[in-house]
Amino acid sequence: MNVGFVGLGHMGGAIALNLVKAGHQVTVWNRTPEKAAPLVTLGARRAESPRQAASGDIVISMLADDRAVEEVVFGEKGILSADAGAIHVSMSTISVELAERLAAAHAETVSPFVSAPVFGRPAIAMAGRLTILAAGAPAALEACAPVFSAIGHRVFQLGETPSAANLVKLCGNFMMMSAVEAMGEAMTLAKSRISPEMLFDVLTEALFPGPVYETYSQILIDAAYKPARFGALLALKDMNLMAAAANQSRVPMPLLGVVRDHLLGAIAQFGDDVDSSAIALVVERNAERAA
Amino acid sequence: MNVGFVGLGHMGGAIALNLVKAGHQVTVWNRTPEKAAPLVTLGARRAESPRQAASGDIVISMLADDRAVEEVVFGEKGILSADAGAIHVSMSTISVELAERLAAAHAETVSPFVSAPVFGRPAIAMAGRLTILAAGAPAALEACAPVFSAIGHRVFQLGETPSAANLVKLCGNFMMMSAVEAMGEAMTLAKSRISPEMLFDVLTEALFPGPVYETYSQILIDAAYKPARFGALLALKDMNLMAAAANQSRVPMPLLGVVRDHLLGAIAQFGDDVDSSAIALVVERNAERAA
Amino acid sequence: MNVGFVGLGHMGGAIALNLVKAGHQVTVWNRTPEKAAPLVTLGARRAESPRQAASGDIVISMLADDRAVEEVVFGEKGILSADAGAIHVSMSTISVELAERLAAAHAETVSPFVSAPVFGRPAIAMAGRLTILAAGAPAALEACAPVFSAIGHRVFQLGETPSAANLVKLCGNFMMMSAVEAMGEAMTLAKSRISPEMLFDVLTEALFPGPVYETYSQILIDAAYKPARFGALLALKDMNLMAAAANQSRVPMPLLGVVRDHLLGAIAQFGDDVDSSAIALVVERNAERAA
Amino acid sequence: MNVGFVGLGHMGGAIALNLVKAGHQVTVWNRTPEKAAPLVTLGARRAESPRQAASGDIVISMLADDRAVEEVVFGEKGILSADAGAIHVSMSTISVELAERLAAAHAETVSPFVSAPVFGRPAIAMAGRLTILAAGAPAALEACAPVFSAIGHRVFQLGETPSAANLVKLCGNFMMMSAVEAMGEAMTLAKSRISPEMLFDVLTEALFPGPVYETYSQILIDAAYKPARFGALLALKDMNLMAAAANQSRVPMPLLGVVRDHLLGAIAQFGDDVDSSAIALVVERNAERAA
Repeated sequence: MNVGFVGLGHMGGAIALNLVKAGHQVTVWNRTPEKAAPLVTLGARRAESPRQAASGDIVISMLADDRAVEEVVFGEKGILSADAGAIHVSMSTISVELAERLAAAHAETVSPFVSAPVFGRPAIAMAGRLTILAAGAPAALEACAPVFSAIGHRVFQLGETPSAANLVKLCGNFMMMSAVEAMGEAMTLAKSRISPEMLFDVLTEALFPGPVYETYSQILIDAAYKPARFGALLALKDMNLMAAAANQSRVPMPLLGVVRDHLLGAIAQFGDDVDSSAIALVVERNAERAA
Repeated sequence: MNVGFVGLGHMGGAIALNLVKAGHQVTVWNRTPEKAAPLVTLGARRAESPRQAASGDIVISMLADDRAVEEVVFGEKGILSADAGAIHVSMSTISVELAERLAAAHAETVSPFVSAPVFGRPAIAMAGRLTILAAGAPAALEACAPVFSAIGHRVFQLGETPSAANLVKLCGNFMMMSAVEAMGEAMTLAKSRISPEMLFDVLTEALFPGPVYETYSQILIDAAYKPARFGALLALKDMNLMAAAANQSRVPMPLLGVVRDHLLGAIAQFGDDVDSSAIALVVERNAERAA
Repeated sequence: MNVGFVGLGHMGGAIALNLVKAGHQVTVWNRTPEKAAPLVTLGARRAESPRQAASGDIVISMLADDRAVEEVVFGEKGILSADAGAIHVSMSTISVELAERLAAAHAETVSPFVSAPVFGRPAIAMAGRLTILAAGAPAALEACAPVFSAIGHRVFQLGETPSAANLVKLCGNFMMMSAVEAMGEAMTLAKSRISPEMLFDVLTEALFPGPVYETYSQILIDAAYKPARFGALLALKDMNLMAAAANQSRVPMPLLGVVRDHLLGAIAQFGDDVDSSAIALVVERNAERAA
Repeated sequence: MNVGFVGLGHMGGAIALNLVKAGHQVTVWNRTPEKAAPLVTLGARRAESPRQAASGDIVISMLADDRAVEEVVFGEKGILSADAGAIHVSMSTISVELAERLAAAHAETVSPFVSAPVFGRPAIAMAGRLTILAAGAPAALEACAPVFSAIGHRVFQLGETPSAANLVKLCGNFMMMSAVEAMGEAMTLAKSRISPEMLFDVLTEALFPGPVYETYSQILIDAAYKPARFGALLALKDMNLMAAAANQSRVPMPLLGVVRDHLLGAIAQFGDDVDSSAIALVVERNAERAA
């Protein structure tokens, strides 16, 4: 297929690469153009603007935050201005409110809109094994299948409301951070009587199998809070998006409050480059003698 | 083996039954003696006191709370007064502090002490498929093997400090309740855009496999808060034991605070017979128009 | 003095009226012009734009939120475009971040900037008895004295950084809401044994004199949650501004989280028109049998 | 009057001294008898047991915690065993549940029971200026008047249910700690833009007059967390009594949870001898770079 790709950061670059490798005709755009070079070497074409990238069958955007998405979509020479019928697949982790504005704006054009945020870090993206949460019109989702199969190993279809996919993505991250908070509190309480290793060996085997508990319990056991896998700043961004949705929907979420406070504490205490799992370190430090 | 059994409630009765079925010579005692009748019919002997139940190779106690355990252990004609060398296996979910007092008290006798709390509801106990968390002297743990194999399908050996097993059990229950809280908050936020069923189908498959998330997400989807599987009163008891341990060890645990408050709310709002998962219902109700 | 006034809502209208009564030459502007009519009758002049209102000695703005302030300041024909040397006195309760942008933007003009948010409801404003929190350049603050004396009974000078005044205002509101939360929790716990009236009579007399505890304890005693004095929506706005500042400064504030969650709950459960003190009602309802 | 006095710690010793000075005939008992010596020098008589101290018109008990009160009341040769008609005035800060057991136990004797916990530190007690919260039978309260006037400057009569007085006392301490928490969060957020001194000068003068805010804001301004005035351990004891009452009454109290967690943190981080106001220091430290 003719696929445009906007946003070549760690995630976007890896995804675009898999599209090129899968034989799609890929046209790429990035705010800092040098990031496109390796892809161009492999056969991708360079677009002059997001609008130009949106002139094929599909255009995918994968950017850091709401503001960046707003620029490439609504800006002059933005994706929306192409209005050429390309399906816009938004993979960024953005606010529910922006997803709704994007859906509404595309509904006034000939270009369908699909939200397709993903679970998975850059290494998973590179391996083409992302989990894709897709929502939008059935025909548009169907048309995306060849693209999704090149970049992910599983696609969940979440209905026709694009913002639902964004919300599920945010809920997933919230539940991950909640699990880490619970592990951090349990570990801190138990460590005078039992090692974190033994504690989590039992609990992951008996009650909590699966990637989240296994990955994060190992990070906590190893105190491997740097370098970050999923940085505290990124996690804070997501939890702030959750809080914005909760504010809009009038939903009190006290556990979200605990997680956000501990992310703020992690960043304040250990720096911008700390892993999101350092919320467990915040918990531990609160129970330890100050130097 | 010659096994005494003290405490024939829902859990204890089921465990004792499996011991009888496995061919052990079981001597039972219960505060209200009529509960012993079915076991006696099947071949168990009736003890006149906890002390008498503690005259064999092993005596197991499985009771509702700290107070009940204190009575059968430290009381007149209590287990400790037998001092006949029987290994005392305490399966009750009790406080870390009581586990330590029990270990200290037995250390002054010839009778070894093993903590062996379990994961699993009465139906699991009946099926002989409990998960057993055992801690105590290696020789004592080894001697318990034939008994454990009759009642559980998995035994985790957690070292020589009996109270460590109690702490792991409590941490497991805390992490379960934390997972339910996270699910309840996510479901409440998301439900205007996506059904709980679709939300949890995705998240349990993509991120959170295993019995806890699968069981509880189904309860939340079905709003099946009564009858209780693991009642809110029992969960509150356990969370209070966690809080007592946290108080003793000076560990701030804000997520534990959220869970406890929501259990109190669940009991106040929906009655003593509600399931512990109704903490999710407390979350939902806080975001809904009052009648 | 020649005073421009932008924003004639409940608060702004009352303040402008006192300026007219005090003999100042007042030029008013409001987005919906009819609100200016009563003031014009009393001698005020009508401005065609915020810019025109900013052509005298001082221009005061008193608006609902950040967005409204941004429009009248940065918009076409906005206050900033006058650049005629008038001191801009911003009395709105706005974000710290916007106060900083306003200060920076005015610093590039000949027009000084003063932040002067107030404590006091419309009835207090009408009586000319507001408490004014003022920060800005000393000369500008001095020049504002005749204006401040017409509208308030007390002025606190908070240094040269305008945003400091906004922050103190927000902190004051946060501490008020925190006091109400504490009263609500205490009342709910105690009410089975002692009436709210007796409880608060003792505690305000013995420990907590002053307007906040006296006013709010009476509201709680009377369950007078409607009509609103200081509405939950306004309080939520302020707490969200606090949360934004806390997020920017990386300050975990768990008590702020409790207050925000209960304001969300109050709005969800009792409607947009409920008083902010209904956070106490949220607390009570969480401890009561559901219908 | 003939007054017995049981418990001569910092508070009890000061109160007993004022009774002696006021001309009452005072008979004292303390677990460690040497503490009675200075009072005996001034004319007090020494009792051999709490029972003997309870043989006059009134017997006052002032002890550290529930356990100590239980011993001197219910123990062999305890106050209750006197059963000689002396009014028992319990001034200790104890649990609501124990106050109810004491009231019930005395109701079966000829000795009336009055709960009369106080607000005030040892220096205030020494000055005879305590605030007394008294509840019990009207005749008993009336009979206590001469004693109360010797030790306090204000008496609040809180009805006939003794435990109501204990609950009001606990609620007062909870509201104090809540105020400190609010101040600590506000100060931490604001300090990059405004000094704690200026912040609290404004807020105590404009909104929060009175002893609690004035005293504690000064402690926070001076960072005077040691030596303790009202120690974190004592405050934690009181908050745990609140939590026990909340648990019994099924009242979720999230702000109480925040305060307790921060007291645990203060003790863990800064030691057993830190002031309760160090919960503000816990807040600050969570927002600061770790060493």
